[in-house]
Amino acid sequence: MKRYFASTLAIAVALGAPAFADDAALREAARDIFEAIPMQPPVPEGNMLTRDRIDLGAMLFFDPRMSKSGLFSCQSCHNVGIGGVDGLETSVGHGWQAGPRNAPTMLNAIFNIAQFWDGRADTLADQAKGPVQAGVEMNNTPENVEATLASMPGYVEAFKAAFPGEADPITFDNFATAIEAFEATLITPNSRFDQFLMGQDGAINEQEKRGLALFMDTGCASCHSGINLGGNGYYPFGVVEKPGAEILPEGDKGRFTVTETAGEEYVFRAAPLRNIAITAPYFHTGKVWDLTEAVSIMANSQLGAELTDDQVNDMVAFLTTLTGEQPKVEHPLLPVRTSSTPRPAPM
Amino acid sequence: MKRYFASTLAIAVALGAPAFADDAALREAARDIFEAIPMQPPVPEGNMLTRDRIDLGAMLFFDPRMSKSGLFSCQSCHNVGIGGVDGLETSVGHGWQAGPRNAPTMLNAIFNIAQFWDGRADTLADQAKGPVQAGVEMNNTPENVEATLASMPGYVEAFKAAFPGEADPITFDNFATAIEAFEATLITPNSRFDQFLMGQDGAINEQEKRGLALFMDTGCASCHSGINLGGNGYYPFGVVEKPGAEILPEGDKGRFTVTETAGEEYVFRAAPLRNIAITAPYFHTGKVWDLTEAVSIMANSQLGAELTDDQVNDMVAFLTTLTGEQPKVEHPLLPVRTSSTPRPAPM
Repeated sequence: MKRYFASTLAIAVALGAPAFADDAALREAARDIFEAIPMQPPVPEGNMLTRDRIDLGAMLFFDPRMSKSGLFSCQSCHNVGIGGVDGLETSVGHGWQAGPRNAPTMLNAIFNIAQFWDGRADTLADQAKGPVQAGVEMNNTPENVEATLASMPGYVEAFKAAFPGEADPITFDNFATAIEAFEATLITPNSRFDQFLMGQDGAINEQEKRGLALFMDTGCASCHSGINLGGNGYYPFGVVEKPGAEILPEGDKGRFTVTETAGEEYVFRAAPLRNIAITAPYFHTGKVWDLTEAVSIMANSQLGAELTDDQVNDMVAFLTTLTGEQPKVEHPLLPVRTSSTPRPAPM
Repeated sequence: MKRYFASTLAIAVALGAPAFADDAALREAARDIFEAIPMQPPVPEGNMLTRDRIDLGAMLFFDPRMSKSGLFSCQSCHNVGIGGVDGLETSVGHGWQAGPRNAPTMLNAIFNIAQFWDGRADTLADQAKGPVQAGVEMNNTPENVEATLASMPGYVEAFKAAFPGEADPITFDNFATAIEAFEATLITPNSRFDQFLMGQDGAINEQEKRGLALFMDTGCASCHSGINLGGNGYYPFGVVEKPGAEILPEGDKGRFTVTETAGEEYVFRAAPLRNIAITAPYFHTGKVWDLTEAVSIMANSQLGAELTDDQVNDMVAFLTTLTGEQPKVEHPLLPVRTSSTPRPAPM
């Protein structure tokens, strides 16, 4: 735990730091901490961004027949039309069960150190295998996914094209690999903040600049740094003061369940803040709907800082500059089922 | 009821009719009964297909926040990627309730005489108001839909653009009108059958031509005629012989509930057959998954005809030629919620 408290102390000191001399100084400081989203998607390790693989991934991402009920696709909880989330506190899955945590966005998820709130999946491909099998989400099995895919000539052809030369390309691993390829393309470059980082002084206004300075000065950037302003490290929620039980319920111990390491109770992956203004509600419980409230809670619980209303508003103004160009996705046409396709079983 | 039996008798006589002399004769007969889907969508009566209105309709069609739970959009049950259906026997709605009937496709629905299996909505706009309010589907209210829309600047602007000059454009009526405009564009022209109708002899093969001839000769075309090969009239299910209770359950009396007219028990709108090969399962109960089986059931129950296996296969081959060009739809970016947007209430 020492490292968390050490950084908290450093933050407390930084609170009194002077503002930046000019835009150039602000940009220089910001460039030390943050990075713009590239215009081209990065290639996930061990994967290839061929057109065939991306297109197959899009089909799988949008296909509700990947769930046991025939009702849910990846898109159900990671909606490309609303910032990659579902806008619910926690997602609703098979049998109308409430999921345990708020659905995180898949937009820019390729830049995260690991996936899920507790980082339990190292890659997007690993992540993609989770919800498909979770009883509370899509409630399917790898065998049934493979049988479903193999029953449709449209998928047989698409897997051949995406994984050429493989004798038996329809596997649950390749299913996940194709989804990873598609998701890697779901990045949101060219936000106003990124334009500022690139050198456009006028891309963000004075209030937003004050918010950016404050974001660095108060220590938010200690955890929310890098290309995604978060998603790149693990930190306890409630370093200085634990938020209420509704926001941080005792039962969800976060990363502790993954690592079983003492001191990692209530530790979570720092939330990536890209597109945060369009992805309410907030926190792993999804209990906070207002970004202003979320900022205040974080300042109190993580930094022990009591921000003025003006400061919170400046910070929120800055956060709105993180909304990037949303991906334009044509809804894929999905392969036609055959008489051997396993039937959906919602009930 | 007389008219149904009359047409049945006419059909029985026609069964012995000779095949058509050549492709020209077959086409001439077919043109008397069917019509090709136009390349351009028709304008619904009282509506306008402006770009702004279509785009707004697409947003509304894809927006799960139009449901009380925040989970369901029109797209949930009328998936543009799988022929406009959900591939379930009956749809699953709010609270994981099973809907009473199989979700019909919205593709080409603009050409139907009326909407729903029992024709209880005269227009697509009227239809669009139904599922939003149905407790078993989206479980919302017009007031909550309007409040949701009015809370988001993105929708306020989009309604202004779609309904210019209106003092208060955000109304439940305009909501439905915009969805109707979008749905009117969801047509599937240029099927191989339509190409044949237009004069391309080679667009359908010999087996498919036999199937088409049979479709007209046996009397299928008595009910399944016009541009949608159905969707243009009401007929009792089980004219000659009632199918089993699983396929035609006693409790669902069809159009009788709408008209309360004696003799209209178990009367339904003839199912439109466009894209039928990609929209399993079949019938208002969705209990039949195989098109071959569906054709046999219809021949027995409606025509009293025992078709040979070859005849059924020919008919199915013909029905596959009705699959048209599927609409390419870019998933719309949806307006951002605000703190005054009513929260989803799945539980």
